[in-house]
Amino acid sequence: MTASLLEQLIEAFRVLPGVGQKTAQRMAYHVLEREREGGVRLSKVLGEAMERIGHCARCRDFSEAELCATCASPSRDTHLLCAVESPADRMAIEQATGYRGLYFVLQGRLSPLDGIGPRELGLEQLAERLSEDQVRELIIATNPTVEGEATAHYLAQLARQRGVRPSRLAHGVPLGGELEYVDRGTLSHAFGSRSEMYD
Amino acid sequence: MTASLLEQLIEAFRVLPGVGQKTAQRMAYHVLEREREGGVRLSKVLGEAMERIGHCARCRDFSEAELCATCASPSRDTHLLCAVESPADRMAIEQATGYRGLYFVLQGRLSPLDGIGPRELGLEQLAERLSEDQVRELIIATNPTVEGEATAHYLAQLARQRGVRPSRLAHGVPLGGELEYVDRGTLSHAFGSRSEMYD
Repeated sequence: MTASLLEQLIEAFRVLPGVGQKTAQRMAYHVLEREREGGVRLSKVLGEAMERIGHCARCRDFSEAELCATCASPSRDTHLLCAVESPADRMAIEQATGYRGLYFVLQGRLSPLDGIGPRELGLEQLAERLSEDQVRELIIATNPTVEGEATAHYLAQLARQRGVRPSRLAHGVPLGGELEYVDRGTLSHAFGSRSEMYD
Repeated sequence: MTASLLEQLIEAFRVLPGVGQKTAQRMAYHVLEREREGGVRLSKVLGEAMERIGHCARCRDFSEAELCATCASPSRDTHLLCAVESPADRMAIEQATGYRGLYFVLQGRLSPLDGIGPRELGLEQLAERLSEDQVRELIIATNPTVEGEATAHYLAQLARQRGVRPSRLAHGVPLGGELEYVDRGTLSHAFGSRSEMYD
């Protein structure tokens, strides 16, 4: 006997982060009982997003178009480039600070044991952008974890070799924390008092 | 400017119960980064469920077919009928107990102030089933809230008028609970309806 559509729906909800059997049941019953329209909209938008959202050719962030809205915007400061580990980090910075420069999304951090090296993070592409003359400062906003710090040092070296000044977010971001979950005030402060990196 | 597909996706996730802005963001990034296949499946199943899942004509539970699997099953005991408030309650009883009878899902509880009366709970339909002769016991499993109790009394009357024996889930101290932390009402009730112990 195949699973009923309701059982399939409960199972399908479990792909979401932090959603176990009980929560999935609650979600399924909730949309069936009270949110039919919202459920239909979620289904449509999710299907479309899975199909159409890829990566921006320039900054590697998620994007529907070849270039994301930020990279395509003529009003951003092309002298500033901010390297972040994930799209969520990028969004956190965008929402918390008044930063008007551009981004580069690594989609990870250096982690040789997991087979994640410079190639996986698109660092060749980043190096090219740093050589392009326009970028004057590379703001390195990797997470303050061991791997994030290692990545930051690698990026700083990459920048210096190309005559670009590397900088790092100020302390204030709690060690071991994730940028995505830091409160806006702290993040804004840390972003504002970033400091230059020396050997 | 219209919202990007990513923003729409984050917004759409917020129809789920207990999901705010941060969780919705996390869900969107999670499916985009790590669960494309699961996301596609969720989108499809959800769309299909919103379109095809209606109510069982007999027990008012959610069902794709006119009769749900339980009502259509020839192996259930048609002498027993269990009335519950919601499909989630029905599933909880089905999963926790060895009950082999049938169900009737009220999809709510009597609440005159909210305009929920006997008609909204399909009690005419329930009365018809109770008159059908086969049902001998109506197990009333509404929640132990004020409205749930009122509904239970109404249902008990309905059953008695049709020669059906009404019964109610036992109230008492939950298994594994500590007496110290049980609320007074429950403790008082459990104390009053204590039962003799035999070897």
